[in-house]
Amino acid sequence: MRESVRVLGIDPGTAVTGWGVVEGRPGAFRHLGHGTVSPSVGLTLARKLAHIHAALVEQCATWRPDALALEKSFVGRNVQSAFRLGEVRGVVMLAAAVAGIAVTEYSPAETKLAVTGSGRAEKAQVERAIVRELALDGTIPADAADALALALCHLQTFRLRALVAMSEPPRRRPQVGAR
Amino acid sequence: MRESVRVLGIDPGTAVTGWGVVEGRPGAFRHLGHGTVSPSVGLTLARKLAHIHAALVEQCATWRPDALALEKSFVGRNVQSAFRLGEVRGVVMLAAAVAGIAVTEYSPAETKLAVTGSGRAEKAQVERAIVRELALDGTIPADAADALALALCHLQTFRLRALVAMSEPPRRRPQVGAR
Repeated sequence: MRESVRVLGIDPGTAVTGWGVVEGRPGAFRHLGHGTVSPSVGLTLARKLAHIHAALVEQCATWRPDALALEKSFVGRNVQSAFRLGEVRGVVMLAAAVAGIAVTEYSPAETKLAVTGSGRAEKAQVERAIVRELALDGTIPADAADALALALCHLQTFRLRALVAMSEPPRRRPQVGAR
Repeated sequence: MRESVRVLGIDPGTAVTGWGVVEGRPGAFRHLGHGTVSPSVGLTLARKLAHIHAALVEQCATWRPDALALEKSFVGRNVQSAFRLGEVRGVVMLAAAVAGIAVTEYSPAETKLAVTGSGRAEKAQVERAIVRELALDGTIPADAADALALALCHLQTFRLRALVAMSEPPRRRPQVGAR
């Protein structure tokens, strides 16, 4: 495993898609960049998706992340909004797959828990935690903050998994009935 | 307007995406090709989308259609199925946008009406109408039949629009209150 892992977090949306890149070493996270993608309102749906996809392809090429952390959505306001969000998720996952970057999904509750310690944290709490944890100056767009939170969540989860693996006693495995 | 219009119909689905190409001149439709795209079940969601997208890019390059007719979905079994279908729709629309092909969406009812004369036609009726209208030999996969129906629907709608425009008396436009 590489010493440092670089994660691109993506908070997808037809109007605004947030992105953020965080690099992590054990005990230290470094903010590399963040931003938002907002296609012109007048574009057709297909052209909006092409705009978002092109921006994502560019970010993947620029940052060469090891992993992409994507917001997992369970609920939509309605089925139509789920279709619209799914369309954006589709072009995001496509950009990752073509660049050879594995996609891991995290629910909003998982992300909030990893970043603030509470799965029910308010949006403003998440933003403050991100600004503090990554030592950012001032405020950042809400969608970019969510994207950075996803990247941090992925790094935290990685770290936790490593800790759990280290703390497990060796040779501890379920006994399978022999015969 | 060109004498003949070539339409790529797409019936999207994560498991099976149907495609079909029909070329139309006034009063005559010609079947050019059809097929289905089925990514391996074991692939990740992102890789499945990349597979579907690559197949669509290839069909757009092969047939160089003037238009893409996509099934417009209003209902999902649930929000999760709407997300999954949206993801496929996203990579389909992306392929069209990058190839410079305009996307028009038709509901299942519009498609059935155009092909069978009834918006409530059964799946088997649609298939029989497609086989007859396009003079196909034998049966075709259901998803490819739906895709061909979408392409035919687009051509019919085009023809109807042209007929309506021809039958309208000239200079007939709503009077706007003058002052």
